Amino acid sequence: MEYKFGSDEYFMNEAYKQAEIAYEQHEVPVGAIIVSNGKIIAKAHNQTEMLTDSTAHAEILALTSAFDYFGAKYLPDCTLYVTLEPCTMCAGALYWSQIGKVVIGANDEKRGYIRLSSPQEKVLHPKTILEEGVLSEQCGNLVTDFFKKLRK
Amino acid sequence: MEYKFGSDEYFMNEAYKQAEIAYEQHEVPVGAIIVSNGKIIAKAHNQTEMLTDSTAHAEILALTSAFDYFGAKYLPDCTLYVTLEPCTMCAGALYWSQIGKVVIGANDEKRGYIRLSSPQEKVLHPKTILEEGVLSEQCGNLVTDFFKKLRK
Repeated sequence: MEYKFGSDEYFMNEAYKQAEIAYEQHEVPVGAIIVSNGKIIAKAHNQTEMLTDSTAHAEILALTSAFDYFGAKYLPDCTLYVTLEPCTMCAGALYWSQIGKVVIGANDEKRGYIRLSSPQEKVLHPKTILEEGVLSEQCGNLVTDFFKKLRK
Repeated sequence: MEYKFGSDEYFMNEAYKQAEIAYEQHEVPVGAIIVSNGKIIAKAHNQTEMLTDSTAHAEILALTSAFDYFGAKYLPDCTLYVTLEPCTMCAGALYWSQIGKVVIGANDEKRGYIRLSSPQEKVLHPKTILEEGVLSEQCGNLVTDFFKKLRK
């Protein structure tokens, strides 16, 4: 499917392509990209198996890549697109990055950070804008399919 | 001060030495070590400034180092000693590592993960044993002193 360049769907689909790479590599299929000024400046997918590092989630790898790109510790003008709701660790990392916006594909009720958040405690940085549900079915199906295959 | 080799105070003091290195390098002074079978297998201190990476906390760096050491994604037989209560990101990372035990020096009511935890949701892995308050004054004073100097 073709999405209008620069739309949320377009960028989420780019994150989805990263998730597909993870899927092919037998990693939990989650992908993330970071956009600044309409340009993709970081792409990453889950690499916990390949790196034997249970913290090597797509979001963490994309953040580190973006910090490198800008030579900066904060990313207030960036947007992260991620195919699955970030876990507690990744939401905490996004907090420290002060990222401008986070766009989520599918929700993750079991491991996602949103269950820990409240109006008093957003987990993400107070200035970070949150958007949910972009291409959620497509993003979620890839994860469901992965675990179905794994259990076989 | 001398602590009995192998005691919690001994290992926390080793983590404290890491925090002192961070202090000297103008980093928020937090240190962490990971112990397996009575042996220190990873040491790290906060390096967010040096690496220009706001996720480069002592706990994350120590975990990555321990994953490398064992070539494993999980650390059920290890204990992490950390001078300051882990933030949400680090607690989330410790969750994924399934680390056996976490020993905390000083608490951090503002940024620490404990405020987000509940009996239903420990944030850490359900199997992880938590111990708090080891050399807490010493560990906390270093952080207080750092921020006092910074504000001058």
